[in-house]
Amino acid sequence: MTDRRESSKLIADITMSLDGFITGPNAGVEHPLGEGGDRLHAWVYDLATFREKHGQSGGESNTDSEVLGEAFESVGATIMGKRMFDVGVEPWGDDPPFHMPVYVLTHETREPLPREGGTTFNFVGDLETSEDQARSAAGGKNVSVAGGANVIQQFIKAGSLDEIQIHIAPVLIGDGIRLFEDTGAEHIEFKTTRVIDSPEVTHIRLQLAK
Amino acid sequence: MTDRRESSKLIADITMSLDGFITGPNAGVEHPLGEGGDRLHAWVYDLATFREKHGQSGGESNTDSEVLGEAFESVGATIMGKRMFDVGVEPWGDDPPFHMPVYVLTHETREPLPREGGTTFNFVGDLETSEDQARSAAGGKNVSVAGGANVIQQFIKAGSLDEIQIHIAPVLIGDGIRLFEDTGAEHIEFKTTRVIDSPEVTHIRLQLAK
Repeated sequence: MTDRRESSKLIADITMSLDGFITGPNAGVEHPLGEGGDRLHAWVYDLATFREKHGQSGGESNTDSEVLGEAFESVGATIMGKRMFDVGVEPWGDDPPFHMPVYVLTHETREPLPREGGTTFNFVGDLETSEDQARSAAGGKNVSVAGGANVIQQFIKAGSLDEIQIHIAPVLIGDGIRLFEDTGAEHIEFKTTRVIDSPEVTHIRLQLAK
Repeated sequence: MTDRRESSKLIADITMSLDGFITGPNAGVEHPLGEGGDRLHAWVYDLATFREKHGQSGGESNTDSEVLGEAFESVGATIMGKRMFDVGVEPWGDDPPFHMPVYVLTHETREPLPREGGTTFNFVGDLETSEDQARSAAGGKNVSVAGGANVIQQFIKAGSLDEIQIHIAPVLIGDGIRLFEDTGAEHIEFKTTRVIDSPEVTHIRLQLAK
């Protein structure tokens, strides 16, 4: 038997522009990915695995689609920040594209919010509780920290993020929210464990040195 | 016969951290690469091609060394900003590691400064003049924009940079000078033309869409 912590990794999987942004400026209900954020995620919308996750058929089956499908498949529970939830909950609609338990970090006490298709939003007060509950719920699969940037940074600083896969899109966004900002970088080292590239995006998987 | 502009590209070739920095904080004569900047360039110091360029023998012959050697070989003239020159001129010493004509952007009028080993520093007043003179001097090879970041940004904004190769080092620097800052990003798109990776660094070559 392997230890639960070894078999279930805490990961993040996120698209970043060449200049380090994960959303454009003025992200909010109107522009969930910020202005220009669609340019960042242009590589993803036509992929078969993305369309399938969002209840659509067809789409391109290529390397990028495989990398994305692999990421979807590996995850059994998701953690996100309250701001990401607030911005996303409307556009995600009745059948959000998670199809798994989601743990939302908030200081509010709030009843779980079940949705269609297997997604239930659970509200938890701190990082450690979210990690413990998500690991238990993930059924041996990985737990994904979906964002935003500052939640990912908190898990990096806490030393609990095992792995991050960054999809580097060859665009400049210029303004918005950066993945890495004020991370107290001095003590953070990564090991690159896999790189897969296509003309549209470079997928770099990194392990956090602990 | 091919046109000179087609055969001789204006390129940049630079190491960037995962969080977008090309030097650490407080870059100056004491720390030419900024504090912590050595972590950014750790991948390079032991490579055979790097050592050769700096008049040393031995070192590692691997993929990274080949990528670096290819970059050195392809370049016939270099352009740099005045600040990079001021910080570097002392540490580079009597035989600077360029071995080619170097064009330094400055509003000062100043006589060329010849050094040993084929390096001559020439002082030019504007981007366009530096590009014209460097292309003429490059003997059909590429012209490299060595830095700093704001000089590379100026060539990108002017639409004259043909290609950039970014060596992404899997470290966070946290503070210092970013490669891409205030680039007026909306209209800048890249096409990824080659990716080569090793455990130490991911080399992404991008063509600027014009």
